[in-house]
Amino acid sequence: MDFNLTNDQLEIKDLAMKFAKNEMMPKASEFDEKATMPLDILRKAWELGLVNTCIPAEYGGNGFTAIDSMIITEALAYGCMGMNTSIMANDLALLPIVIGGNDEQKKRFLTPFTQDYKIAAFCLTEPGNGSDAGGIKTLIKEDGDDVVINGNKMWITNAGYADLFVLYGTTDPALKHKGITAVVIEKGTPGIEVGKKEDKMGHRCSDTRAVTFNNVRVPKKNILGGLNQGWKIAMKTLDHSRPMVASSAVGGAQCAFDHAVKYAKERVQFNVPIANHQAIQFMIADMAMKIEASRLLVHKAAWLLDNNLPNTQLASYSKAFAADSCMQIATDAVQIYGGYGYSKEYPVEKIMRDAKLIQLYEGTSQIQRLVIAKEIFTR
Amino acid sequence: MDFNLTNDQLEIKDLAMKFAKNEMMPKASEFDEKATMPLDILRKAWELGLVNTCIPAEYGGNGFTAIDSMIITEALAYGCMGMNTSIMANDLALLPIVIGGNDEQKKRFLTPFTQDYKIAAFCLTEPGNGSDAGGIKTLIKEDGDDVVINGNKMWITNAGYADLFVLYGTTDPALKHKGITAVVIEKGTPGIEVGKKEDKMGHRCSDTRAVTFNNVRVPKKNILGGLNQGWKIAMKTLDHSRPMVASSAVGGAQCAFDHAVKYAKERVQFNVPIANHQAIQFMIADMAMKIEASRLLVHKAAWLLDNNLPNTQLASYSKAFAADSCMQIATDAVQIYGGYGYSKEYPVEKIMRDAKLIQLYEGTSQIQRLVIAKEIFTR
Amino acid sequence: MDFNLTNDQLEIKDLAMKFAKNEMMPKASEFDEKATMPLDILRKAWELGLVNTCIPAEYGGNGFTAIDSMIITEALAYGCMGMNTSIMANDLALLPIVIGGNDEQKKRFLTPFTQDYKIAAFCLTEPGNGSDAGGIKTLIKEDGDDVVINGNKMWITNAGYADLFVLYGTTDPALKHKGITAVVIEKGTPGIEVGKKEDKMGHRCSDTRAVTFNNVRVPKKNILGGLNQGWKIAMKTLDHSRPMVASSAVGGAQCAFDHAVKYAKERVQFNVPIANHQAIQFMIADMAMKIEASRLLVHKAAWLLDNNLPNTQLASYSKAFAADSCMQIATDAVQIYGGYGYSKEYPVEKIMRDAKLIQLYEGTSQIQRLVIAKEIFTR
Amino acid sequence: MDFNLTNDQLEIKDLAMKFAKNEMMPKASEFDEKATMPLDILRKAWELGLVNTCIPAEYGGNGFTAIDSMIITEALAYGCMGMNTSIMANDLALLPIVIGGNDEQKKRFLTPFTQDYKIAAFCLTEPGNGSDAGGIKTLIKEDGDDVVINGNKMWITNAGYADLFVLYGTTDPALKHKGITAVVIEKGTPGIEVGKKEDKMGHRCSDTRAVTFNNVRVPKKNILGGLNQGWKIAMKTLDHSRPMVASSAVGGAQCAFDHAVKYAKERVQFNVPIANHQAIQFMIADMAMKIEASRLLVHKAAWLLDNNLPNTQLASYSKAFAADSCMQIATDAVQIYGGYGYSKEYPVEKIMRDAKLIQLYEGTSQIQRLVIAKEIFTR
Repeated sequence: MDFNLTNDQLEIKDLAMKFAKNEMMPKASEFDEKATMPLDILRKAWELGLVNTCIPAEYGGNGFTAIDSMIITEALAYGCMGMNTSIMANDLALLPIVIGGNDEQKKRFLTPFTQDYKIAAFCLTEPGNGSDAGGIKTLIKEDGDDVVINGNKMWITNAGYADLFVLYGTTDPALKHKGITAVVIEKGTPGIEVGKKEDKMGHRCSDTRAVTFNNVRVPKKNILGGLNQGWKIAMKTLDHSRPMVASSAVGGAQCAFDHAVKYAKERVQFNVPIANHQAIQFMIADMAMKIEASRLLVHKAAWLLDNNLPNTQLASYSKAFAADSCMQIATDAVQIYGGYGYSKEYPVEKIMRDAKLIQLYEGTSQIQRLVIAKEIFTR
Repeated sequence: MDFNLTNDQLEIKDLAMKFAKNEMMPKASEFDEKATMPLDILRKAWELGLVNTCIPAEYGGNGFTAIDSMIITEALAYGCMGMNTSIMANDLALLPIVIGGNDEQKKRFLTPFTQDYKIAAFCLTEPGNGSDAGGIKTLIKEDGDDVVINGNKMWITNAGYADLFVLYGTTDPALKHKGITAVVIEKGTPGIEVGKKEDKMGHRCSDTRAVTFNNVRVPKKNILGGLNQGWKIAMKTLDHSRPMVASSAVGGAQCAFDHAVKYAKERVQFNVPIANHQAIQFMIADMAMKIEASRLLVHKAAWLLDNNLPNTQLASYSKAFAADSCMQIATDAVQIYGGYGYSKEYPVEKIMRDAKLIQLYEGTSQIQRLVIAKEIFTR
Repeated sequence: MDFNLTNDQLEIKDLAMKFAKNEMMPKASEFDEKATMPLDILRKAWELGLVNTCIPAEYGGNGFTAIDSMIITEALAYGCMGMNTSIMANDLALLPIVIGGNDEQKKRFLTPFTQDYKIAAFCLTEPGNGSDAGGIKTLIKEDGDDVVINGNKMWITNAGYADLFVLYGTTDPALKHKGITAVVIEKGTPGIEVGKKEDKMGHRCSDTRAVTFNNVRVPKKNILGGLNQGWKIAMKTLDHSRPMVASSAVGGAQCAFDHAVKYAKERVQFNVPIANHQAIQFMIADMAMKIEASRLLVHKAAWLLDNNLPNTQLASYSKAFAADSCMQIATDAVQIYGGYGYSKEYPVEKIMRDAKLIQLYEGTSQIQRLVIAKEIFTR
Repeated sequence: MDFNLTNDQLEIKDLAMKFAKNEMMPKASEFDEKATMPLDILRKAWELGLVNTCIPAEYGGNGFTAIDSMIITEALAYGCMGMNTSIMANDLALLPIVIGGNDEQKKRFLTPFTQDYKIAAFCLTEPGNGSDAGGIKTLIKEDGDDVVINGNKMWITNAGYADLFVLYGTTDPALKHKGITAVVIEKGTPGIEVGKKEDKMGHRCSDTRAVTFNNVRVPKKNILGGLNQGWKIAMKTLDHSRPMVASSAVGGAQCAFDHAVKYAKERVQFNVPIANHQAIQFMIADMAMKIEASRLLVHKAAWLLDNNLPNTQLASYSKAFAADSCMQIATDAVQIYGGYGYSKEYPVEKIMRDAKLIQLYEGTSQIQRLVIAKEIFTR
């Protein structure tokens, strides 16, 4: 057993943390307020090699392991959970290509992302199906050498800026899981209608929109793994994306925690720093414990991935535990700040607003528990 | 034992709930967005007799009992926790007059609030003291027939619109509790400087500001209960105000709950309404239980007040339990809505943002526990 | 609204608390150790009028209201949760007669319990059905003027000493709820086989056994409300019994709490009583809050009953909240005692063992939540 | 990073788990009931090399790493938490020798434990000091080449059977931490009075007693690290013993969990196995998550130890998190069993009783949080 990061990992962590502290944190509040994508910051992250961590070296990527990508994600979420979601969404969209694409597709779709900063959007959720991926209704119909896509997608991160859409549809809703099909759609393909930007409680700088697909025609060579082969790809994607989202929860929680610790040492009440009060000490201890436990679950889930071992259960552990912990930790960080915590002049209220999303996307905290129970009861 | 509301109480509840649903709720999101005081709505509430519930009948008030005032507060907070805070802040400011003022003061200060819609601000908190009321530093110095006030107050609700300030200062910080003095300051008195509006996570339509008092001269006849008599008044005020704030938590929680129940019956996932899933049922059951328990604690705390029985312990029970429950319930209501809950188009994310404040003001959830333990261990 | 106990209620509370403290508590540990029924103590409770609180005055009972019976139950559980369960089981068994019996049956079955100390056992649970009352398999077959009963019952309190069994069976399992039938069986009826005493973690002095009914023949006039009419009676019984069981949780929790408070004031660590540490203060405050909330839920559930108002939802609130709180409170009371809490020489470990049962019987904490959700979603 | 166990570790885990399942589990209930030490089983564990895991190879030990010892402890606690405590207590007592002894002392005291099954007792706690190790009152007075020991120790595991006592006393209580002195006392030394066996809620087969030291004379060469050098040894011991105790919580929790999973798949309610109900699934998922997180914290704390890195914070994380989780998991396992869980015929009620102790010894869950906060706020 070894809990050390390698020197390379320590370097990349250092790089990402510096970027988070120097480039992201100073702008986090401003972009939250304006609710616009910080394109310059995102591009800078790309220039540093912190974006598209899932692209393999043979297609121009940095050859990061899953653990590497967790380390980067945690650091970027430390800087701003919203900006990180925009960055991470590239991975969520490109992972199905990495997992289910053939060599030609990987070259065609992944390589451009390593040559310039490009943005990808992952289109799974629909208005009527959130947690039930098997209930997808967006139709993918064969038509000669093409497929034609019709349907509505919701809560699509990066939608307004996407160069590439990776979409899950179905060849026939009656087939349920067995009809799910993954397809890549390039920007500018006729029939893509991007809705207005959603006005959200948090993650405000990330760009979230509905996307409608009206008779969108795409060549069959854009289908990943063949028609009706999407479910398997989706499930494998989740094994990778859930620890990643969990990792962002760890980053957000760590940031809220560090602020709370610093504040507790400075803020005086009843003539001593509030850090001297057991009530504060107990909150801080619980926060610290949960962060460490969350991070260990994330790292183990990623390590299993890197070793080609089944990680579905660990992935869901990490997602549920880290997301729920992050929500609690951010709420408590505001509490430690007292009234100041409620003000937008201090950083913790934003983290509390941002945190809530983590309990909801890539499978809610409830869905994770169902996944875990299924793994336990059917093995 | 009797858990019935009287007919009068049922009528007033009905009146307040109709006002909440018809006048407040439709505008809640707009004023949250604009972050401005809804003066027309507040005045309308006043016209209906729902403001200044603490003013006794002999000074022109409606002669409400404490329980009456809890019923009204819960209903108004159901409509909008932020608007209700603005309304409730009048009571927080006027209560020290009701409790500690002499007949002349009551006539002079309370009666005008019954003749026109006027706004009051309660000035207790300072930048350096949040939870520690005994640590007040704002100086009140005798000067002939006047006192002269110097100091800084923070987080003052209604500050930008106040016709009357009720302030706690000290004649000498070294006296601690024994120097606390309550004084009434009328709008326009020279030396009052009102700061910029605080930009808050929630309760955004309520007007919160710092207020600086620079050599503010006020006649001694504005002092409540005499110099150095403020602590007792402050403590008695809390016995009344804490259940009231708790009541607003019940209102907010009930609103989040009602939305969540309605949504759970409509939203279909895995082919059935999510209300059919035990995971949702358990969340709903826990929410319902906690709301009922919170309300009972509030009503008992108020009933003790109405019967001149000691209620400090119950007041803190109600405040801590209702505030913590409201925070959890609102967070879970967002969870039940899934992604939609995170959008500003749906009402629950605002309640979650609003809820957090209740754990912080009128004594944090931590302070309540210290008060409770003190009552238990020293009796 | 009125939270006062009447003078009669105060007297009965006083009587029951004195009995609990003087007669039950000194013997609680001994009977826990020996795991035998304290028949003398139970008879003494009967002599004082504290047993069979549900019997109406017209059949010789004390004419207690539901609230009265909650007050008594709480006090007796304060003395010993195990002894109280034995006492309370009489009510659980007699309530179906009170609720579903005709005048003749009430006279025949209830009156003897008011003339001498007699013991009743309520036979609902079966080996294969715990939470699912509709899944009862014990057969009740008509045979002329009699019915013949065959089946196995589990976890029957008082079974080894019962003068009267009140049993729920079915005329046909395929009818589910619609076949449930309640019948009264007198001691000595041939075919009743009482199993060995269960060896339990707590509630050790109460007598719990399996009971097998082999061709037990009983006259039809012992059927309550007619064949197939049992479900309605069972549901109404739960509306009464659940708050009662909840009330016993309040009593147990209050006892653990009182011990913990006393100990925290005496026990010195780090040179001060542990009551001075915020860590202890917070535990104590949370315990106190939950006890008060539990009691209010119990009293409201009982008050609804006394006023013939629907109370199913409140009954389940009180049961779930009080039971879960009692478990937590007793566990924390042991924690406050430190190592001493783990020893049988101190009273709190027994309460922790006793507490667990309350989360399990008369509907588990999980079943209560399903009942609550059903009430909410179908109204 | 590497989460693999080595082949040696897998072998030793396998060996310990087989012993747990074949030798300990079948006897766990019987020895719980009788409340006597299972000396034959303990000796068998010793013969397999599963006892005294802390003895270095150079003194005849197995040369286990800290992680190895966690693996063994978890497995043995899986078999029976009480028996494991008796085994683990040897390590708790021998660790101060390993950490603070000189070569001669190690040879003299440790080697005999590798040649035959011997029993050691660790004497820290006193009647008046539980959590406050600095408040020790047992006096160690110099007298020529000897020291003379006077004082009372409480809750001493293995006391009735100990071949060796390792005691912490003080040369002067006024010196507080700076007077603490560790000394080894061999069985049969005049003046050792062992009290009666404590009657405990759980861990009933482990032998716990008060031990009184009346003018117990011991040569100075039995002092570990010199007079007044005990505090440092005690603190280093805790860094090792806390993860070990945490590991026993993981073992107990895993055992309760495995039972609950098995039962949930078999037990039918409402016509399906209860494993099909989301209410059960959510409990199981939460249990599973917490066990994994606990184990990771334990392993990291041990890995830090093995790498001579500071692990105080991780040690306390693991202890607090694993103990609190184990208590909850065992309580929930009983809940999943329903009524059967409350019976001594099923294994889970014993685990619930055993679990409580883990929150209390080697520093309560509260003390761990204070340690954590101190580490955080003073770094």
